[in-house]
Amino acid sequence: MRKEDSVFGTNGVRGRRVGVPSQPVLPMPVQPMPVPVQPKSKSAHFVATEHTGDNKKHLLLAASGSVATIKLPNIVNALSRYNDLSIRIIITKSAENFLAGQSEEQPHLDSLLQEKNVDGIYRDEDEWAKPWVRGDGILHIELRRWADLLVIAPLSCNSMAKMTMGIADNLLLSVVRAWDTTGDIGGSKKKCIVAPAMNTAMWEHPVSKKQLKVLEEEWGWKEKGDAWVEVLRPVEKELACGDSGNGAMREWSKVVSVIEERMDLKDKDKK
Amino acid sequence: MRKEDSVFGTNGVRGRRVGVPSQPVLPMPVQPMPVPVQPKSKSAHFVATEHTGDNKKHLLLAASGSVATIKLPNIVNALSRYNDLSIRIIITKSAENFLAGQSEEQPHLDSLLQEKNVDGIYRDEDEWAKPWVRGDGILHIELRRWADLLVIAPLSCNSMAKMTMGIADNLLLSVVRAWDTTGDIGGSKKKCIVAPAMNTAMWEHPVSKKQLKVLEEEWGWKEKGDAWVEVLRPVEKELACGDSGNGAMREWSKVVSVIEERMDLKDKDKK
Amino acid sequence: MRKEDSVFGTNGVRGRRVGVPSQPVLPMPVQPMPVPVQPKSKSAHFVATEHTGDNKKHLLLAASGSVATIKLPNIVNALSRYNDLSIRIIITKSAENFLAGQSEEQPHLDSLLQEKNVDGIYRDEDEWAKPWVRGDGILHIELRRWADLLVIAPLSCNSMAKMTMGIADNLLLSVVRAWDTTGDIGGSKKKCIVAPAMNTAMWEHPVSKKQLKVLEEEWGWKEKGDAWVEVLRPVEKELACGDSGNGAMREWSKVVSVIEERMDLKDKDKK
Ligand SMILES: Cc1cc2nc3c(=O)[nH]c(=O)nc-3n(C[C@H](O)[C@H](O)[C@H](O)COP(=O)(O)O)c2cc1C
Ligand SMILES: Cc1cc2nc3c(=O)[nH]c(=O)nc-3n(C[C@H](O)[C@H](O)[C@H](O)COP(=O)(O)O)c2cc1C
Ligand SMILES: Cc1cc2nc3c(=O)[nH]c(=O)nc-3n(C[C@H](O)[C@H](O)[C@H](O)COP(=O)(O)O)c2cc1C
Repeated sequence: MRKEDSVFGTNGVRGRRVGVPSQPVLPMPVQPMPVPVQPKSKSAHFVATEHTGDNKKHLLLAASGSVATIKLPNIVNALSRYNDLSIRIIITKSAENFLAGQSEEQPHLDSLLQEKNVDGIYRDEDEWAKPWVRGDGILHIELRRWADLLVIAPLSCNSMAKMTMGIADNLLLSVVRAWDTTGDIGGSKKKCIVAPAMNTAMWEHPVSKKQLKVLEEEWGWKEKGDAWVEVLRPVEKELACGDSGNGAMREWSKVVSVIEERMDLKDKDKK
Repeated sequence: MRKEDSVFGTNGVRGRRVGVPSQPVLPMPVQPMPVPVQPKSKSAHFVATEHTGDNKKHLLLAASGSVATIKLPNIVNALSRYNDLSIRIIITKSAENFLAGQSEEQPHLDSLLQEKNVDGIYRDEDEWAKPWVRGDGILHIELRRWADLLVIAPLSCNSMAKMTMGIADNLLLSVVRAWDTTGDIGGSKKKCIVAPAMNTAMWEHPVSKKQLKVLEEEWGWKEKGDAWVEVLRPVEKELACGDSGNGAMREWSKVVSVIEERMDLKDKDKK
Repeated sequence: MRKEDSVFGTNGVRGRRVGVPSQPVLPMPVQPMPVPVQPKSKSAHFVATEHTGDNKKHLLLAASGSVATIKLPNIVNALSRYNDLSIRIIITKSAENFLAGQSEEQPHLDSLLQEKNVDGIYRDEDEWAKPWVRGDGILHIELRRWADLLVIAPLSCNSMAKMTMGIADNLLLSVVRAWDTTGDIGGSKKKCIVAPAMNTAMWEHPVSKKQLKVLEEEWGWKEKGDAWVEVLRPVEKELACGDSGNGAMREWSKVVSVIEERMDLKDKDKK
């Protein structure tokens, strides 16, 4: 209640509610750059086939609700130096809280559209933005078709759990469940790289072992034919919450270099 | 961003979002029929025992968030020719997006109340419509008591996953988790028919096999005593999204004929 | 629909709720005590280390969406007679519906802050109340650090399912997933007591057996080193919904006495 007042007040401030304000409502210390008006064409009515002839490699880059989401701008920025790359970003509701313009290292998510290769940012509500009628595209299917590679960095404990069980209660998880794990549907098998990032205790929790086993052993990106997932295991360090131990997302520069390698990115130029 | 403005207007009315506007907000090309005012008596304060002497067979018909939800009107209409049938509908938040009056084949959900046998439509918020006090009914329990048969058509990949794990984070899944699978509680064992419907890749995803196994082998409606679920396996065809392959919901007419058979519906008359 | 009108004003815009109004909106028959203004200091910016020297035992007491949530005031009241106890409460969105001031036995949740030992009440939105920046605490981690014991009474079928699978899509489940099950992180192993409470059919549902097995056999609080969960199994009685059978939460007085025993509470005084 106390919260509602400040969030929804009388000034028509829009709210996201799953307990999660999409826009911060408390005074923010730093507001580093103006939020760009997002051109509608960038995310609305996205149709994969309109982009098949673009001579670009297509990276679907997702972030779920870990603090490591603040590394997304670094990852995106590092990848902006390629000429032959197109990036589309999926963000979960929780993750969006980390990129709300509250500090210099946490610009507003929409500001990433200013980066050279970023061609779209997608949130849960984009799935349902237009009342679906026969003939319309379905966003999570179009994104899967468009993508050459899906990278989820960071992968929260929650999204890791749900992913391994095929739960699809948001846009990102719908893409994962609709992934063409064999290549039987779209003609080419598509891989998915995930970088778990969580508190040490979350990582040490007994469920993690089971979930990691599904990702690495059942779906793991090995030489065998049915593999489609690659896990960038977390590393030990002092975490944002003050705990020390395993669970931290692999360095963002490592995530970048794995993407470069897996996508065979070469067309580097000076920015 | 763009979306919020139109949904929540300028009057600062606060909404709850799970990314899903329950009413479409973009201009709709076709508005085929006026949305009826839903008589309050139809869904509020529903008590199962008030209907035990109605000499009708009770079908609890549910739809989850697959495009095949657009077949719900056909199913309902076909079943409207029976005199001894009462139908109550449960719809998930996602599924409701497909019946918002956006085209002729997608009338507004509430318009189904005009069909002869439809006696109630239930959404998640109906569970909590009245602050619960001791002595009040509990909607998902009342619906389970009332029902002779539960049919979930379509069953989305997400609801299939959650159902097999006993997750109950909405009205439909609460009914499923509270299902009287043995007959020990209500005296008669009640069956549940599900018709999965999803993109081919969702269906081919490795989790589907595990979930289908739970539904068919562990809970499967066979001759053994503890069986309570029947799966109408999806079929191959060209899907709404353009992919071709398995995953499409069984024809709606097949769903109807299975219901007719399982409920032993006979009292047919000309409409 | 009826509900929406009052929630969302007169323009008929209806919103999506997670089924759960955080405040009841219908006229309430009894409003037993005025809702206190919650002092912000009680729940905002909670930092565990500020309380390490308080010479108190720290009980993290949670309720999920079962009717047995109405016993929370009794539990809290019984524990208010200890001088060396500090209680912080976590409530799920669903559970909050049961403590909205709708009857004498169901006071408004915030009124529990008037009880002597209650030092904070936490809802999902408190996780994201302040836009997170580097250096800020993370509520579910702070609460875990602060707590000597976590008691979830009642544990709903839904939270039981999600807990056993490591799903963390709300504050309570994030605390559970971040629980220090071994003591390797915070130095002392912390236990978690759960009191499932659900309709008989929910309890008899085949998934319950699997979930109970995880809680009791895999994570069970036995003498072995890796155990951290204790289940207070439900009991048979006539349930709030009218069904009779197993599934009812253990008597609240039993929950209290187990807490007293496990926390070694002694410093009793007359209130
Ligand atoms: C400030 C803050 C930091 C968090 N950091 C993490 C994290 O690093 N890893 C994680 O798995 N969850 C973290 N969480 C919890 C998740 O955000 C929570 O489980 C959420 O439900 C995840 O949703 P998603 O998987 O849909 O993004 C954090 C929560 C908050 C409030
Ligand atoms: C336009 C559109 C069409 C969809 N069609 C399907 C489908 O056919 N089958 C499916 O399993 N999910 C489909 N989805 C995804 C589900 O709606 C999504 O997983 C949702 O969370 C399911 O929620 P529910 O199971 O609570 O209804 C579709 C989504 C959109 C936006
Ligand atoms: C009036 C009412 C009473 C309910 N009682 C119970 C119950 O006793 N046990 C239970 O497991 N679920 C019960 N439910 C269903 C849960 O509230 C529902 O599954 C919800 O999603 C649980 O959310 P939570 O686990 O996040 O609290 C009840 C629902 C309603 C509307």
